[in-house]
This record gives sequence, structure tokens and C-alpha cells, in this order.
Amino acid sequence: MAEQDNVIYVGRKPTMNYVLAVIAQFTDGKKEVHLRARGRAISRAVDVAEVVRRRFMQDIKLKNVEIGTEERELQDGRKVNVSTIHIVLAK
Amino acid sequence: MAEQDNVIYVGRKPTMNYVLAVIAQFTDGKKEVHLRARGRAISRAVDVAEVVRRRFMQDIKLKNVEIGTEERELQDGRKVNVSTIHIVLAK
Repeated sequence: MAEQDNVIYVGRKPTMNYVLAVIAQFTDGKKEVHLRARGRAISRAVDVAEVVRRRFMQDIKLKNVEIGTEERELQDGRKVNVSTIHIVLAK
Repeated sequence: MAEQDNVIYVGRKPTMNYVLAVIAQFTDGKKEVHLRARGRAISRAVDVAEVVRRRFMQDIKLKNVEIGTEERELQDGRKVNVSTIHIVLAK
């Protein structure tokens, strides 16, 4: 549970919602915050990481960036591959 | 010049155009290919890297992924920050 706590899934909400979620996690004492996104939300996850680091918390470091692929099943049963990103921010 | 050669700027064209460009570079003997993208094209650059590695050239490795921010000047003179990604694929 504590493990999941510091993972933020970036989706379709405005960038600033996720930025505030990241800041809340660090303010809450977390040493690392993980951003995860798929498909078109990948660009937004990068925006979130950059806005946090450049505009709000200059002491936060980019610890790791990984990209990958996940298989998703559509409602009609077809399977499609979707790209993913996993960004680790650390104090 | 040779330095620039293996850099592919990912923009608004279909993903497969860039995938083919990457394959052409490796087939041409390059040991590394650099993918660069900004803003919304970031998701597409990740797709390009993943499609190349998973579907076409399984021997290609993801050497590095970097994210950053660039300042762009709009036509009216205002400056905006735009996120960037730089993915290095290597044989």
C-alpha cells in the first residue's frame, strides 16, 4: 500500500492537477514520486515532471525515465499495444 | 554534419514514417539513432522507439531517455516553455 502511495497515473486531467499531486506527495515527506502514463498522456507526464522541477521544486531530481509497451484488450477483444512512460522524481 | 545525420525529429507525420527512417539509418550502418520531439509529439517519439525495438529490430537497445524543457518564442513575441524528449537507440 505504502508502495502504491507515491505513484501518480497521469491521464486526461489538466497538467496542473498532477503537478499539485506531486508537490503534495513530496510535501508529505515522500522521497520519491513515480509518474506513469500511457499513449497520448505520455506528453503530459513529461510536462508534469518538467513543471514540478523548473517552476516549483528546484531541489527535485529526475532519477529515472523508462519507456515501454503494454498490451491492452479492447472491448471487442482485439489486442493493441500502447506505449508507456515511467518517470521517477526524487528529493 | 555526420553528427546530425542520425538525428530524427519526430513531428506530426504518421508514426510509421519515422519508424522507417530509423530502420534506414541502422541499415545504413549507424550505431546510434537519436529521436527528438517536443510537446505533443513526445508520445509519438516513444511509439517510434517502441515499434522499432519490438516489431522490427529486436537487437536495438534503448540507450538513453532524457526529458527537458525548451523555450519557444511565439509569433506575437511571447515566450512559452515546451517539454522535450531525447531518445537514443543503439545497436
